[in-house]
Amino acid sequence: MPQQLVIDRPFPLVLGGSLPRLEICWEQWGDRTAPGERTVLVMPALSASSHIASSDENPEPGWWEGMVGPGKGVDTNRWRVISASILGSPYGSSSPMSAQPGAAKSWGCDFPQITPADQARLFAWLLDAIGLERVHAAIGSSLGGMQVLQFAAQFPRRLARWVSISATGKTTPGTVALRRVGRCAITTDPDWKGGRYEPGHGPARGLAIARELGTITYRSRDEFNRRFQWEPDGETSARGLAFEVERYLEAHGRRFAHRFDANCYLLLSRCMDLMDLGAGFGNYAEGVKRITAPGFIAGVDRDMLIPVTEQQHLAHLLESLGRQVRFEVLASEFGHDAFLKEDSWFGPRIAAFLAEA
Amino acid sequence: MPQQLVIDRPFPLVLGGSLPRLEICWEQWGDRTAPGERTVLVMPALSASSHIASSDENPEPGWWEGMVGPGKGVDTNRWRVISASILGSPYGSSSPMSAQPGAAKSWGCDFPQITPADQARLFAWLLDAIGLERVHAAIGSSLGGMQVLQFAAQFPRRLARWVSISATGKTTPGTVALRRVGRCAITTDPDWKGGRYEPGHGPARGLAIARELGTITYRSRDEFNRRFQWEPDGETSARGLAFEVERYLEAHGRRFAHRFDANCYLLLSRCMDLMDLGAGFGNYAEGVKRITAPGFIAGVDRDMLIPVTEQQHLAHLLESLGRQVRFEVLASEFGHDAFLKEDSWFGPRIAAFLAEA
Repeated sequence: MPQQLVIDRPFPLVLGGSLPRLEICWEQWGDRTAPGERTVLVMPALSASSHIASSDENPEPGWWEGMVGPGKGVDTNRWRVISASILGSPYGSSSPMSAQPGAAKSWGCDFPQITPADQARLFAWLLDAIGLERVHAAIGSSLGGMQVLQFAAQFPRRLARWVSISATGKTTPGTVALRRVGRCAITTDPDWKGGRYEPGHGPARGLAIARELGTITYRSRDEFNRRFQWEPDGETSARGLAFEVERYLEAHGRRFAHRFDANCYLLLSRCMDLMDLGAGFGNYAEGVKRITAPGFIAGVDRDMLIPVTEQQHLAHLLESLGRQVRFEVLASEFGHDAFLKEDSWFGPRIAAFLAEA
Repeated sequence: MPQQLVIDRPFPLVLGGSLPRLEICWEQWGDRTAPGERTVLVMPALSASSHIASSDENPEPGWWEGMVGPGKGVDTNRWRVISASILGSPYGSSSPMSAQPGAAKSWGCDFPQITPADQARLFAWLLDAIGLERVHAAIGSSLGGMQVLQFAAQFPRRLARWVSISATGKTTPGTVALRRVGRCAITTDPDWKGGRYEPGHGPARGLAIARELGTITYRSRDEFNRRFQWEPDGETSARGLAFEVERYLEAHGRRFAHRFDANCYLLLSRCMDLMDLGAGFGNYAEGVKRITAPGFIAGVDRDMLIPVTEQQHLAHLLESLGRQVRFEVLASEFGHDAFLKEDSWFGPRIAAFLAEA
């Protein structure tokens, strides 16, 4: 079961202000007494909790079950693995769903805007709290991979290596555009009520639409064209579900809206837009230069949300700065979501990279 | 000024049923007495009217002003050019905005679902009405290009050549997925009222979101990343307009929602999903086989909505059937919208292709 940690001092935020206290919901696997040099941090993405893998305490499969466990890519026989719900997510760390200190209600839309740099700092505070000065590695994909980069830039001496998958060092307008449409679907849903909806009565339809668009950008046209019927077999009107792919998206969107909070989604969506290794360091190159540990950057050829060129550019920049960086491209129709589907590609590569040091 | 034509007999529809009468709003350019062999049809796309170019009667620039006119790609000194508002569009031909015969109100959401094959047939009826048995060519892009293909398949003897740009012979699930999200944004807007909104009080916010997503898919990431600032310079909250690209999309969406009807949009969005050259001919290959006139198929390398592979596959299939077909790929960051932006590429190629016969 996840452990709840409350750190009762102000947590400063990149865009200004601070949270009066920091809550961290975290879990661990493997030998819990192992020192930092045998510890690996896993940083989750937008919609994932701290439950990356099943454990004796919680046998439910985790979202990275295929990658984390005994003998797997992140081998829990070898590594102590630590994960935490990310800052802003509805899964237990400080977020719009947390109680606002001194107020009778949760933060909701009053939660201040965060960035991936703040989210990375949550992991540093967690390490402080559990007495680890430095870990062997940090690993993450998508928003998780952005946190890894920010952690490596902010705390270069607190990790020996890092793995960043399908992330970016700096969000580009082409990605902001896609996320914006999802946010608009939520904020124009009348049930959003300017963010002041009652728990359980949020903008479920708007959130479902945002998730449908998300689902499209997390996969690829190749996957959809292989997987779904090309012929319509349902009601052909514009409001009908004429095509199999429409029923798939509709079900996905509805399930997600049921389990996720709209204010958290908006916060995290914007948080990813604000990913920028240069923030706080003067400019992009200066921020990238702060990353000194050896890294493994992976991208997927058909990533529609964060194209592989963005991982490639970051790898080249790091190389030009004399950093040790490995860059690999996976060909996968699963696009941005490949890290959840292609264990046989990621597993051995991550295992080998972790073992190198 | 466009001319209004009413054909007072039932217009049958591919999916069943018929319209009790057909209204056609059309325009022409060049020598209006020219015979069919010197006539070129231009078939508009989703959001375009019959006003493709300025004329003495209407000096307003048309949506294909750079392509149609004296000395241009479609040279009105040489060709009589005819265009019509497409079936289902709010620009004057039969659509949800037309009066429903025998009813006091317009069709609205009761307008039956149409397909590009129906839209192509509107042009055949127009030719009948103005006494042209056969034309030199039909040209169109996007939904216009789909109508061209359907016209060539349904009426192979009524045209000598055809040009289809950024279209498809059969819509694939990857494209349906993108369009579905836009439709959902409209149908979940409470102002949609199940399609029974009052004129002028439609789901403007939902329609704007659909258009924002459309705008993204009509252009490319390359264009957005070149054109827009990468740094946020506005309010960073999730509801704010933090990035230049957000302000651009927001303005585009709002303008479109002001000029377009939501029921027409829904109808046309689904209409494109239903594009299938095989419909009515047993199967896809049989439908494609009916196209006998020489054609020019063009696609754009960064088309996000209808990828160039779809134009390529159609061209290969036509070639394998022994048809005379030219296939060219334009490299353009304007993606699906390139036909509106790349006159210097399309103009000479279309002029040469039209002149070949």
